[in-house]
Amino acid sequence: MTLPFTAALCADAEIENCLAPKAELEAMLAFETALADAQAEAGLIPAEAAAAIARGCAAFEANEAALTSGLFKDGVLGPGFVKALRQSLPEAARPHLHFGATSQDITDTALTLRLKPVLMALDARLALLIDGLEALAREQGSLTLMAQTRMQAALPITVYDKLEAWLRPLRRHQERLAALAPRLLVIQFGGPVGARTELGDKADAVAAGLAVRLGLGNAPCWHTSRDNIVEFGATLALVAGAVGKIGQDTALLAQTENGALKIAGGGSSSAMAHKANPVTAELLVALARYAAGLSGTLNQALVHENERSGAAWTLEWFTLPPLAVATGAALREAIGLVPRMQFQTKTQAR
Amino acid sequence: MTLPFTAALCADAEIENCLAPKAELEAMLAFETALADAQAEAGLIPAEAAAAIARGCAAFEANEAALTSGLFKDGVLGPGFVKALRQSLPEAARPHLHFGATSQDITDTALTLRLKPVLMALDARLALLIDGLEALAREQGSLTLMAQTRMQAALPITVYDKLEAWLRPLRRHQERLAALAPRLLVIQFGGPVGARTELGDKADAVAAGLAVRLGLGNAPCWHTSRDNIVEFGATLALVAGAVGKIGQDTALLAQTENGALKIAGGGSSSAMAHKANPVTAELLVALARYAAGLSGTLNQALVHENERSGAAWTLEWFTLPPLAVATGAALREAIGLVPRMQFQTKTQAR
Amino acid sequence: MTLPFTAALCADAEIENCLAPKAELEAMLAFETALADAQAEAGLIPAEAAAAIARGCAAFEANEAALTSGLFKDGVLGPGFVKALRQSLPEAARPHLHFGATSQDITDTALTLRLKPVLMALDARLALLIDGLEALAREQGSLTLMAQTRMQAALPITVYDKLEAWLRPLRRHQERLAALAPRLLVIQFGGPVGARTELGDKADAVAAGLAVRLGLGNAPCWHTSRDNIVEFGATLALVAGAVGKIGQDTALLAQTENGALKIAGGGSSSAMAHKANPVTAELLVALARYAAGLSGTLNQALVHENERSGAAWTLEWFTLPPLAVATGAALREAIGLVPRMQFQTKTQAR
Amino acid sequence: MTLPFTAALCADAEIENCLAPKAELEAMLAFETALADAQAEAGLIPAEAAAAIARGCAAFEANEAALTSGLFKDGVLGPGFVKALRQSLPEAARPHLHFGATSQDITDTALTLRLKPVLMALDARLALLIDGLEALAREQGSLTLMAQTRMQAALPITVYDKLEAWLRPLRRHQERLAALAPRLLVIQFGGPVGARTELGDKADAVAAGLAVRLGLGNAPCWHTSRDNIVEFGATLALVAGAVGKIGQDTALLAQTENGALKIAGGGSSSAMAHKANPVTAELLVALARYAAGLSGTLNQALVHENERSGAAWTLEWFTLPPLAVATGAALREAIGLVPRMQFQTKTQAR
Repeated sequence: MTLPFTAALCADAEIENCLAPKAELEAMLAFETALADAQAEAGLIPAEAAAAIARGCAAFEANEAALTSGLFKDGVLGPGFVKALRQSLPEAARPHLHFGATSQDITDTALTLRLKPVLMALDARLALLIDGLEALAREQGSLTLMAQTRMQAALPITVYDKLEAWLRPLRRHQERLAALAPRLLVIQFGGPVGARTELGDKADAVAAGLAVRLGLGNAPCWHTSRDNIVEFGATLALVAGAVGKIGQDTALLAQTENGALKIAGGGSSSAMAHKANPVTAELLVALARYAAGLSGTLNQALVHENERSGAAWTLEWFTLPPLAVATGAALREAIGLVPRMQFQTKTQAR
Repeated sequence: MTLPFTAALCADAEIENCLAPKAELEAMLAFETALADAQAEAGLIPAEAAAAIARGCAAFEANEAALTSGLFKDGVLGPGFVKALRQSLPEAARPHLHFGATSQDITDTALTLRLKPVLMALDARLALLIDGLEALAREQGSLTLMAQTRMQAALPITVYDKLEAWLRPLRRHQERLAALAPRLLVIQFGGPVGARTELGDKADAVAAGLAVRLGLGNAPCWHTSRDNIVEFGATLALVAGAVGKIGQDTALLAQTENGALKIAGGGSSSAMAHKANPVTAELLVALARYAAGLSGTLNQALVHENERSGAAWTLEWFTLPPLAVATGAALREAIGLVPRMQFQTKTQAR
Repeated sequence: MTLPFTAALCADAEIENCLAPKAELEAMLAFETALADAQAEAGLIPAEAAAAIARGCAAFEANEAALTSGLFKDGVLGPGFVKALRQSLPEAARPHLHFGATSQDITDTALTLRLKPVLMALDARLALLIDGLEALAREQGSLTLMAQTRMQAALPITVYDKLEAWLRPLRRHQERLAALAPRLLVIQFGGPVGARTELGDKADAVAAGLAVRLGLGNAPCWHTSRDNIVEFGATLALVAGAVGKIGQDTALLAQTENGALKIAGGGSSSAMAHKANPVTAELLVALARYAAGLSGTLNQALVHENERSGAAWTLEWFTLPPLAVATGAALREAIGLVPRMQFQTKTQAR
Repeated sequence: MTLPFTAALCADAEIENCLAPKAELEAMLAFETALADAQAEAGLIPAEAAAAIARGCAAFEANEAALTSGLFKDGVLGPGFVKALRQSLPEAARPHLHFGATSQDITDTALTLRLKPVLMALDARLALLIDGLEALAREQGSLTLMAQTRMQAALPITVYDKLEAWLRPLRRHQERLAALAPRLLVIQFGGPVGARTELGDKADAVAAGLAVRLGLGNAPCWHTSRDNIVEFGATLALVAGAVGKIGQDTALLAQTENGALKIAGGGSSSAMAHKANPVTAELLVALARYAAGLSGTLNQALVHENERSGAAWTLEWFTLPPLAVATGAALREAIGLVPRMQFQTKTQAR
């Protein structure tokens, strides 16, 4: 995708890399390797086949154009990927690849495998942002600031009060991410229609083995119950919203006429040299509103038709990645903005 | 508000009553009573004043038209309500009413007081819906059903598999509601700008006393940090989405050509007597999409300007109540729909 | 529906009355009367039957509870309404009522009949708002105002410049409403599946006669093609957005520290007597964001399943009426706000 | 931006290329060239300077990394771009570059310059889709199809009826695009705060000259009045919605149990060889819902603070390009899908 320059403002290389085709392929290969290994352990496929599959996965070189073409044909990468991977295997191992699995199993598990580093990265950034705000509170917290209620000067508060109001939701977001992680970071494994029937009485053992090998939690099928995905999106929008509030407050306090906050290194104007625009602060507001919109649209994907909805599932793919990336960008920009904040002593409305 | 007939489809009397003006007034009066009592205990106001306030609150008769007029003038009920209540008190008690509090304290606490029965009602309905689906699983779970993946007949599953897929997110929603309740059902108490300064070193004791008296949790000020409210809205949309998926599956399975599911007592047509429309099922889909949209819009309210944003706060008022009501309607309708479901044995695609 | 006090802020009696049950019943009765009359003229039903239907419609007294009950059963008012109306007619006229029509015909035509006064009311308010802003421009347009770009003082402009920026989109909205009216304000008439087959070669004549009698345009069936409805919603959100921008600018210019604009009769605070809150201005922002959200959700209803989707259609009912009402409220409040605006001469950033 | 494989499903090379950095740079250079030329004609800058600027623009090689870095600093490409372009010019021409203009003028005009081919491409695709559907109507229109109302078999219609219902909104969308084009495809030229003051009495002549040279319409400043942008987005969502309805109907009619429609070359399943998934049809539904969401979020950008809002403007950049691209993808996929449709004669519900 070739996007306008301005798309850089909602981009984030680290989060994108977690989700990008390279990571997606690695995750799909990890799935097939782990599945074969767990099935060999359960005696469902020969150990030699599992070993050959592991070697094949390690050596596999994807034809990305062919995969994308398969994506349009099949609506999902799975069939084309499995076919190409199978052809790269020795004849004897081929029937044992992807045994009892379906495209949705690879796709969804490859998603949660990639959401794990996304969640960790966002969590690390949340901690950094909290650190930055706490440092700012130590340095400037005792300064006085005119509280603004309903866009009017109200009564003085301290910078500490303001920063605590920014910090509290961020701390709650840490708790929220910790609470949802075990729900979200689980395998999806169910076979064609989610019933795991192909594996007979070994199904649960294979699922458990798969989960352990991938470093994910075990869970019953969730291919048609997308609440954990949508909950994650909603939580991302909460995070982006908390950061957007920081941006909005900052832009308001940095107004020329207010002047309660200076931002070092603000934006320039092509026509007005005297201006120092609160560019990053405004960006945080835009990212929050964008994330709110994406989260609402992602929520529409809960109406997932029967045992697999191409329509609803695809809608997740259109909304969750940019939502994670935008939230990452918001946190990154806020982390950079906080040390540039210089509150000005100010005790009464002019 | 006089709404079209069709608004009845997203209405819910029980949830509405929890939130309605009568309940709002009761909650505001409970706030003032509890605040005065807690302040008397802390020695901040005379015990006689607290008693007079309690009597005044018990006897207060609101002029709803005047309150609504004040709402348009002040943007919030608080000022007009406090003024009218104060005038109803004996002279000596008047200065002690609403001491150290601001309109936002009453408004937000009166909201969480009313969200408590809302949450309890929704939770009770979730449990009823789960019971209904589990009963259906016991009765019809062993029947065979053709799984539908990507809108195509796939392979047979059991009705039990289908019902479990509907049940799992509902059970997770019970956990989610239980997890957010202690965050959501707390007092807001901060005074004009959230700093509780008027109460000096008694502030925390008064907050604790207020919380106990109201049956809410204690919490630091959250007047500018609206994540708990928005998280509740997002969870409501998750619930409505899970129910909408039940509706969507039902409507698809009840299609004439599919016929895997009959719905007793379906809708009639003014022109085609042979039809039995899956009216309730479709309604569940509409409610899910409506709730998804409201949740996304509510998320925009996180960009809350400074110490109190009339704009963002008002946006909560426009979106959270209908979101709670729509979710209640969805649960109620689903509870009624489940016992009408009659799965038909069906083992292969025609 | 019993809504919280705060719902009054997005209410509008005039627009609500256009859409309310009473108006809906009148519109449905007008439809049946006009249909019978047009069919009598075309020789499809006896003139006596048409006259009896006209008398029956004039005399009909609806049982609203029964209609609402039918709404839940049938998903639409039509079947219950037609049945009750038919029973009120003399025996001989009964088979001729609603001939060749379906519930969707009554419902959609009764909607456009009611959207006509809605559109006229909104258009009249747009004109009033434009008048008010033009009057303000005449009175205060020559005053100087510090332009604010990216939340920073930029260079002086005149109040005239500011007001023109507010006015231009409003004038374009007048053009948009005029352009969409002939698309929107048309009959829906198609019979059970939209093919008008019951009426044979008289179908088009009856449609034309129906349209003339109802004061609506004639049009081919649009029961499954909802673009005109969604376009209207999108245009309402454009209007509310333009008004929301007026509110946002007003709240920013009225900030204590800026002071470029005073608003006479601003809101009071229960805790801070010195404040004059820009309550109406903030309300306009909230209404714009609410309308934007509703419009986006309404757009989801374009995915209308086959020849009639209960789900998508019902979603229109949940979103279009509050969208129209909120837009009406926004215009009404803006009309009231403009004369209260007092720009202050101000030539440089403080 | 490195996006997951699945992002390809909402990508469109032609529309992306219209909007991409290369096109953005060309449009910005065209703006500066045309502005200088128009200003030379008006006698505001020397003809030699305009010629030097034209040569400089033709020869300019952008440092994309530096521009992106400037974008984060200034919130907009303008300042960095103008500075770099100026440095590439001969000394004498430098002061005459970008005279009386601001970053918003370049940015917004460079947007409408690029939206022109976007609109033309979408319009051409609309025409192609209409052609395809009309051809299908000629070939298969006389076949019988069971109409589906409220997800139930109703009465037979013809394939022609179905296709006409798909075609009508598409034809209206052609009218809508034609009607909005003259509003949308106009220059933005206003200088720092939109007042065109730097150009004195030559301002309007320069604006007219700029418009002619760029092949855009002339228009008063619209930098703060974003209704034309948002209207375009809303119309895109209408188009995507109409196409999504085609996809939804197709997926429903192609269900195994219904079988009224076969899609040649459908998707395969990694686990179930017998399936032919309606992949493209489902994609159209996903694109429609994604576009609806983006349109609603874009609408939030109407609340544009004062004379330039970094927050609201940036939100446009996050939502309008993917909305245009998704609409393009939807049209492209629908054009490819239509010839693969094979309606099956079918006269009664099974």
